[in-house]
Amino acid sequence: MTMNYMMLVFDFPYDGPWGDEMATASQGLAEDISTEQGLVWKIWTENRQTKRIGGVHLFNDRDAALRFRDKHLARLNLLGLKEIFAQVYEVNQKLSQITRAPI
Amino acid sequence: MTMNYMMLVFDFPYDGPWGDEMATASQGLAEDISTEQGLVWKIWTENRQTKRIGGVHLFNDRDAALRFRDKHLARLNLLGLKEIFAQVYEVNQKLSQITRAPI
Repeated sequence: MTMNYMMLVFDFPYDGPWGDEMATASQGLAEDISTEQGLVWKIWTENRQTKRIGGVHLFNDRDAALRFRDKHLARLNLLGLKEIFAQVYEVNQKLSQITRAPI
Repeated sequence: MTMNYMMLVFDFPYDGPWGDEMATASQGLAEDISTEQGLVWKIWTENRQTKRIGGVHLFNDRDAALRFRDKHLARLNLLGLKEIFAQVYEVNQKLSQITRAPI
């Protein structure tokens, strides 16, 4: 059976904290996100040179990916964050298998 | 030892082909990309509703991620593709481990 994987990518400007400090500040959020229905995994991304952070999320359910996107867009907007890049995609499994994707 | 993982995200407008047709058209490119030094894996992403495609790439080497970004930005520009979103990040390993990241 081929799973219908979905990818959600977030990216937005951010002023810190970074690294271990960000990990401490966001540990509760990460624990909450880890329980989201349909989420296979999330990789947390940060770039203190360009002052951007984001996340790459794999879901095994299309509706769950869209619900997660809308929920977290609302959360980020409430925090006053602007210029939020948020894209949802299907995964092209044939090409991803050639490039060793962990799916 | 903690590996210094880097993430590269591409996203850009695109008119097709999609799905299996895209996989056939890009199979050679995927095989070439699979041999790139420092690339751990790439997940290929597509959204035929929004007409965007992209890729999520994990590297184990910062310089390799930047070289790959520049090489493929040049390739996409030569193909006439515009409005290319290309961001490089460090991976926040502590948060990513909480959300089951395959790293």
